[in-house]
Amino acid sequence: MCYHFRMKKPQVSIIMGSDSDLPAMQAAADVLEGFSIGVEVTALSAHRAPSAVAAYAKNAEKHGVRVIIAGAGLAAHLPGVIAAFTPLPVIGVPIKSSSTAGIDSLFAIAQMPPGVPVATVAINGAKNAGILAAQMLGTGDTRIRKALVAYKKKMEKEVLAKAARIGKGGFRKYLAEQKVA
Amino acid sequence: MCYHFRMKKPQVSIIMGSDSDLPAMQAAADVLEGFSIGVEVTALSAHRAPSAVAAYAKNAEKHGVRVIIAGAGLAAHLPGVIAAFTPLPVIGVPIKSSSTAGIDSLFAIAQMPPGVPVATVAINGAKNAGILAAQMLGTGDTRIRKALVAYKKKMEKEVLAKAARIGKGGFRKYLAEQKVA
Amino acid sequence: MCYHFRMKKPQVSIIMGSDSDLPAMQAAADVLEGFSIGVEVTALSAHRAPSAVAAYAKNAEKHGVRVIIAGAGLAAHLPGVIAAFTPLPVIGVPIKSSSTAGIDSLFAIAQMPPGVPVATVAINGAKNAGILAAQMLGTGDTRIRKALVAYKKKMEKEVLAKAARIGKGGFRKYLAEQKVA
Amino acid sequence: MCYHFRMKKPQVSIIMGSDSDLPAMQAAADVLEGFSIGVEVTALSAHRAPSAVAAYAKNAEKHGVRVIIAGAGLAAHLPGVIAAFTPLPVIGVPIKSSSTAGIDSLFAIAQMPPGVPVATVAINGAKNAGILAAQMLGTGDTRIRKALVAYKKKMEKEVLAKAARIGKGGFRKYLAEQKVA
Amino acid sequence: MCYHFRMKKPQVSIIMGSDSDLPAMQAAADVLEGFSIGVEVTALSAHRAPSAVAAYAKNAEKHGVRVIIAGAGLAAHLPGVIAAFTPLPVIGVPIKSSSTAGIDSLFAIAQMPPGVPVATVAINGAKNAGILAAQMLGTGDTRIRKALVAYKKKMEKEVLAKAARIGKGGFRKYLAEQKVA
Amino acid sequence: MCYHFRMKKPQVSIIMGSDSDLPAMQAAADVLEGFSIGVEVTALSAHRAPSAVAAYAKNAEKHGVRVIIAGAGLAAHLPGVIAAFTPLPVIGVPIKSSSTAGIDSLFAIAQMPPGVPVATVAINGAKNAGILAAQMLGTGDTRIRKALVAYKKKMEKEVLAKAARIGKGGFRKYLAEQKVA
Amino acid sequence: MCYHFRMKKPQVSIIMGSDSDLPAMQAAADVLEGFSIGVEVTALSAHRAPSAVAAYAKNAEKHGVRVIIAGAGLAAHLPGVIAAFTPLPVIGVPIKSSSTAGIDSLFAIAQMPPGVPVATVAINGAKNAGILAAQMLGTGDTRIRKALVAYKKKMEKEVLAKAARIGKGGFRKYLAEQKVA
Amino acid sequence: MCYHFRMKKPQVSIIMGSDSDLPAMQAAADVLEGFSIGVEVTALSAHRAPSAVAAYAKNAEKHGVRVIIAGAGLAAHLPGVIAAFTPLPVIGVPIKSSSTAGIDSLFAIAQMPPGVPVATVAINGAKNAGILAAQMLGTGDTRIRKALVAYKKKMEKEVLAKAARIGKGGFRKYLAEQKVA
Repeated sequence: MCYHFRMKKPQVSIIMGSDSDLPAMQAAADVLEGFSIGVEVTALSAHRAPSAVAAYAKNAEKHGVRVIIAGAGLAAHLPGVIAAFTPLPVIGVPIKSSSTAGIDSLFAIAQMPPGVPVATVAINGAKNAGILAAQMLGTGDTRIRKALVAYKKKMEKEVLAKAARIGKGGFRKYLAEQKVA
Repeated sequence: MCYHFRMKKPQVSIIMGSDSDLPAMQAAADVLEGFSIGVEVTALSAHRAPSAVAAYAKNAEKHGVRVIIAGAGLAAHLPGVIAAFTPLPVIGVPIKSSSTAGIDSLFAIAQMPPGVPVATVAINGAKNAGILAAQMLGTGDTRIRKALVAYKKKMEKEVLAKAARIGKGGFRKYLAEQKVA
Repeated sequence: MCYHFRMKKPQVSIIMGSDSDLPAMQAAADVLEGFSIGVEVTALSAHRAPSAVAAYAKNAEKHGVRVIIAGAGLAAHLPGVIAAFTPLPVIGVPIKSSSTAGIDSLFAIAQMPPGVPVATVAINGAKNAGILAAQMLGTGDTRIRKALVAYKKKMEKEVLAKAARIGKGGFRKYLAEQKVA
Repeated sequence: MCYHFRMKKPQVSIIMGSDSDLPAMQAAADVLEGFSIGVEVTALSAHRAPSAVAAYAKNAEKHGVRVIIAGAGLAAHLPGVIAAFTPLPVIGVPIKSSSTAGIDSLFAIAQMPPGVPVATVAINGAKNAGILAAQMLGTGDTRIRKALVAYKKKMEKEVLAKAARIGKGGFRKYLAEQKVA
Repeated sequence: MCYHFRMKKPQVSIIMGSDSDLPAMQAAADVLEGFSIGVEVTALSAHRAPSAVAAYAKNAEKHGVRVIIAGAGLAAHLPGVIAAFTPLPVIGVPIKSSSTAGIDSLFAIAQMPPGVPVATVAINGAKNAGILAAQMLGTGDTRIRKALVAYKKKMEKEVLAKAARIGKGGFRKYLAEQKVA
Repeated sequence: MCYHFRMKKPQVSIIMGSDSDLPAMQAAADVLEGFSIGVEVTALSAHRAPSAVAAYAKNAEKHGVRVIIAGAGLAAHLPGVIAAFTPLPVIGVPIKSSSTAGIDSLFAIAQMPPGVPVATVAINGAKNAGILAAQMLGTGDTRIRKALVAYKKKMEKEVLAKAARIGKGGFRKYLAEQKVA
Repeated sequence: MCYHFRMKKPQVSIIMGSDSDLPAMQAAADVLEGFSIGVEVTALSAHRAPSAVAAYAKNAEKHGVRVIIAGAGLAAHLPGVIAAFTPLPVIGVPIKSSSTAGIDSLFAIAQMPPGVPVATVAINGAKNAGILAAQMLGTGDTRIRKALVAYKKKMEKEVLAKAARIGKGGFRKYLAEQKVA
Repeated sequence: MCYHFRMKKPQVSIIMGSDSDLPAMQAAADVLEGFSIGVEVTALSAHRAPSAVAAYAKNAEKHGVRVIIAGAGLAAHLPGVIAAFTPLPVIGVPIKSSSTAGIDSLFAIAQMPPGVPVATVAINGAKNAGILAAQMLGTGDTRIRKALVAYKKKMEKEVLAKAARIGKGGFRKYLAEQKVA
């Protein structure tokens, strides 16, 4: 069997259990592209297309992928199933479903048995999955580590700018301005 | 690859994520043997031996298996992974681990996405998994349905016998006698 | 007493605790009819009409029913009450209520005591209940097993088609097209 | 069918899902006997002996029972099943099982649908079930209401006596004395 | 101190922690009035008006109240505080708040310590609180017990009528008709 | 490093993890200003601006702050991080996020290890955080204690006024009037 | 009515729902005495001795108490009931019971309604309750604030000493030495 | 300030909130040493020694550390606090405490806000934290990736060997042999 989405691999591969997870997972791609890290995105269900998922996971490393981000909801097996087939680090994103507020997928992703870890981020935490993937690549890449330091500084600056604005005009003025905007 | 545990298949195959689950899962085999239904038992981790699990699941039907019982704890993916590869009904037994009282495995087994069900029983409910397997086979086997009717009658009789004993001697006498026994 | 909904029985009987559960349960009937398996549907509360439920459960087998699907919310006793009265396999569908996100009904259906199993599916998992019923009947019916294999293939093909589309045009184009559609 | 435990009914009938619940439920009988209120005790599973439970519940009122106390664990259906068959008030005692700390049975007893209430007490709260049964009978019985007032006074006095002892000698002396005793 | 709402007491007194609970609690009054049982309704916070609550609870019995229904949300202390001051049975209604889906109030009401029970009903179960109050009064009042039997019969008839309609026209027609209505 | 929001310190400092928490936290400032207690408000993330948070916490006491109120959601570390750096009492407000109903932040704030307490209030309980800050200051300030007594009296009076209105006109009239208003 | 435990009040009053809570609550007294802050300890149930609790709470301030620490388990109403009657800050300690791992008491203490806060600490967090009480008194008492700074320094030093020992000899030696000791 | 445990940094630094976490965390060091990856181990509380933790986190990268593993229980802030101060990937290990079965620390570690991820593993999942750290380093180190492939093969072989033994002698013999051993 051959899946065409598997031609040339960027360093990070983002996969999710269903195309309906794309809006929740998109932030992972956005943040990685911000770090100029190549990503590919696909959607493959561990339960409805298990052979494709196994093939995807088995081949990822040799295609040059170095980190896999896998998002899934409910009985979220996708991250763990992929982790079973690859020596690469797998980041799991529990996706909130309507029924149990994401706690089911948090458990199903985080509680992996000894031997096969999944690096779990927050419920609907796709953005952090992207940052974490960058951090992982950064262990062997000084350029990325520097970019991460800059990223953190930028975040800090934004927080301090807002704090300064709140401190100067008072929080009531700040709130009023935001309602207008 | 070839797994020797796969010679001649009985109707029900019992699998669990680890050999440490054997004490919790054994009741499923016991109850099925009580119904004279052939069982095989194995232990294969969905995360540590994923190819063997996939092969097991893909081949089960053609070896004559008609129902699969799969027990697992923590992020219990085994039942769902097997269900992904077989048209046979899969019964999932959430196994209680020390950390979260089995709720993690209950969620990870029950909350399967549309298209790939797992028939979930109670936490540590291996005995009921065995009975449920018999009931499934009973849909096409009058002999088993009759055996199930007899089984239910026997359970009822035992309950009524105890109730009669409590009613006759009083519950305090009953309790005292049990402490002696 | 006589209930007219009990004339000629199809192989699967779908029951729910209230007529307000019909929208949530309807997918079970849809999927079974897709497999050309006869279904009947009714709504009977285990608490408001307990004698009718008992009669329903006691008579199901002799009317030709082979699998019962029972959906209920809150303190969801219906599946367990039916399982108490029949040797047939009972599939329980926990229905999400507004107050506790379906966890109450998941517990009330899954945690059955030894001797009387209920095959529990996901919260609001009526579609999977239908598939599971087909799988149960498939243990004794080669035609249904083949239909299930085809069903799984079709699901897989749909997943791969979407993956191919995402892989080809990129996920951003895919998302944009979906918003238009 | 005829169950011999059903000869002459006292005002309160205590039932539980299994004879293994007797140690947890016994306090209900103790407290009621302390109020000189007649009790009977039995054990009948709603799932293993459903017809007996239905018969028990249907006949309770005409045998003179005025309140039913029902204790059960796991998917604790017994109180609700009885409530379905009787106009009498049913007090439910959720019994703690090993797997989910009693929350499953608390949900399965408390979350009854509109129309059929169960008066739920705390997990393993058999003593309070007994007191509540007395309070219910007290709505139509001045003697019992007076006994309840006295009971509350006695509890209060005991609490105040301990508080006085702690206040006088200090809590460290109090603790030391208890370790000796 | 004197509270004017305390002139002539009906048999059941309904109290809630806040006037914002009135919409959720109103069903208790409705159902009791349907049984021709006198009710009074008030709103008093156990935390914001504790002396009034204590006075209310201490005096209820001598004003002729026989059952108290108390509804509260969050850290729902009102039912337990009232139970502390009266020998009357207290029915607690956990009211769902936005933050924790009512589980906080279910725990805060159900988990009373030995000696002081609260008869807990379902989250937002005001209707059942009313029925339970009637059942409690029915322990000493044949007329109410008969009314409860009739009430149960009526519920059963309604359920069977709907089931007959679903059975006759099929559930799809039934659903379509409801969407029109 | 120097943060301009740190010029002259009032007695209570309100901080939150993000400016998006301002609407949820604003009630704390409102209630304190009602007690004529000086407040300052800022927003600083423990994770995105950790040095600023550490500086904030270390300097608070010497700038005259006596109580810190810290609100945060999700893995709500802000209150605990501040408590680590200051001898002042820290009040933590768990803020409800969309994913897990605030239980995550309740745990992350309340479950502090021995040695470093955080005074946790209810989920989204900013108003109570303000009152609690006043009570803390009141331990050394008779004027504030008197204001708190008056505050409690006013709350009580409001409750009793509503109760009187409900008692007089009946709850149905009360509800109808509220719908109009 | 008069309770002898109410003679001369120290600044902090520690109360708990039952004398069986003394072992869990004792650390609060220990830590306060370490700060040379006077404590009194008593045990009074909000449910079994409600008038004594009300009297205790109403009189605490005028007897010189400035902070109340209240520990309780299950449906832990004691802290909230006391908070209703006093303008003093009330610290609530949720005590772990066997049935629901302390989550019930955490909810019942933390989720107080607007207007009446309880400063909640961790489950079984009596030691932190003592430190928090000292911090509250420290808002108006420089000596206590200084003692708290010293206390924090001492904790830090102990942590660093252990870290140095682990860093020097390695964690395996450290662990081995602890097993010997 | 200077902490001697900071001389020469290996690639992975393991830190935990308390020396009492050493037995739970030790597996992380063991597994990394098995991969010939240098580790250092220390114990520093985020709450009791916050400046040391900040210094530790800020300096880790320049000392050559590439991955930090942080274990903590209860309101487990340590991993998040460290993640705030470093561009390195931080792996969080939720440690099970006695009170809430580790769910509090799972939430407190996994639910990090956007911008600052923590790679969360299972409750008490120190071994998997070690493997995950190796996988992270493996993104830039072919030797480690190869070692991970070998590690996975070894795990698989062990599982298959056990399965073969169970398949050959039967699970009852297998269980009997284990009890002897």
